[in-house]
Amino acid sequence: MNIVLIGSGNVATQLGLALVKRGHRISQVFSRTHTNAEVLANKLSSKAISCKSELNLQAELYIVSVKDDALVEFIADLPELKGIVCHTAGSVDVQVLNRFDQYGVFYPFQTFTKEKQVDFKQVPILLEADNDKVYKCLLKLAESLSDKVSKASSQQRGQLHVAAVFACNFVNHMYRLSEDLLDDSGLSFELLNPLIKETADKVMSLSPRLTQTGPASRNDQLIIQKHMRLLKGNEPFESIYKNLTESILALSKSK
Amino acid sequence: MNIVLIGSGNVATQLGLALVKRGHRISQVFSRTHTNAEVLANKLSSKAISCKSELNLQAELYIVSVKDDALVEFIADLPELKGIVCHTAGSVDVQVLNRFDQYGVFYPFQTFTKEKQVDFKQVPILLEADNDKVYKCLLKLAESLSDKVSKASSQQRGQLHVAAVFACNFVNHMYRLSEDLLDDSGLSFELLNPLIKETADKVMSLSPRLTQTGPASRNDQLIIQKHMRLLKGNEPFESIYKNLTESILALSKSK
Repeated sequence: MNIVLIGSGNVATQLGLALVKRGHRISQVFSRTHTNAEVLANKLSSKAISCKSELNLQAELYIVSVKDDALVEFIADLPELKGIVCHTAGSVDVQVLNRFDQYGVFYPFQTFTKEKQVDFKQVPILLEADNDKVYKCLLKLAESLSDKVSKASSQQRGQLHVAAVFACNFVNHMYRLSEDLLDDSGLSFELLNPLIKETADKVMSLSPRLTQTGPASRNDQLIIQKHMRLLKGNEPFESIYKNLTESILALSKSK
Repeated sequence: MNIVLIGSGNVATQLGLALVKRGHRISQVFSRTHTNAEVLANKLSSKAISCKSELNLQAELYIVSVKDDALVEFIADLPELKGIVCHTAGSVDVQVLNRFDQYGVFYPFQTFTKEKQVDFKQVPILLEADNDKVYKCLLKLAESLSDKVSKASSQQRGQLHVAAVFACNFVNHMYRLSEDLLDDSGLSFELLNPLIKETADKVMSLSPRLTQTGPASRNDQLIIQKHMRLLKGNEPFESIYKNLTESILALSKSK
């Protein structure tokens, strides 16, 4: 398959690497910043371009992997493309691509950074397409990368994306706040590693409803008040501690 | 060593199992609820007791592992004990034990549930003692269980405990909220497993300051507003989304 990869960010980088690893050919890598296009094109043995007019109009598949908030405007400005055009954004409706003859969504549901390579076999890929032919084509490609391919409507993808903000972005923010707290007390963040691993491991086999521990879940007011005194005036720690503690308390009471 | 284990909760259970596995002898298991004492004593080939008057006064070590908020009152009501008395609570000062001749803290820094056995070799154990002799004794015991033993003052332990609330209890609460969101949209929580694993794995090798992703970290207002509309009126999701998004935005700006 002749694939054009549009974008050079975290998702484009990891998806490109996975595609090449599985033997697919990426004929062009587009980025508005030519240096970024070159860095990724070099990794993928591909050709870097930075003008839309240079886009190969005869490719079979265009994967548009640019920032979610820039996507609509970016797509409006693309030339006519005959192949399948798909985007990789969790939160954007498939219909933003309806000016093309063939379109769909190819959403690898994972958090990506450029530097850390990902085992794509374990990455769920969620697909949506405007017709069966396009769907089958995206399905074939997705199954060459991952063991976990499924269909999801734009609405389901939107809800999954919000859930992922909680389970990934907000979780990382919790890690970050605890690192700040440990820095202040001269302790190493590494001390938390086994706890972080165990907390994550548990919910892979048990529902998080059953694995909640800590002062709020047992309504231990003595400790909660002690922690609130320790964090007094220290924002954002104090307000987040208060907010999340109240939320856990409310859920524990409603059990 | 002749050890008496006081308590039958998550920490007492996992610590007891680890001690027995390493060949230590637990002569008594105390719990105010006799059935609980019996369940754990059976697992540890030990004797169940539920009256403080039955406590063996000649043991070398008493490990008091009761709820943090019940600890002070519980200790006040213990008989005179000649051996070392230590507690396992992250957030309680070592001085609550100063009525005993020999005392200390033996704090296994991990989240425990009764049902899921833990590899104690990887559990950091933080120690504190009123004198060197007691410290050496606790150190020997701790090193027989874990490769990660270190000293921490009561103050450091207190700060570590707050950090752990963020990195474990609040993280689990985020998992739980995303499970609720997925339930509402007919998707399986399992879809999140690779994302949860990757998010946790990353911060074992990179600082969470470097691994923050998502709409807030790139100030993607289009997506943030879309998510806020999706969550409108749905508490606690809406207020937590708003609070944590603002916190991530503030940190990104101060970079």
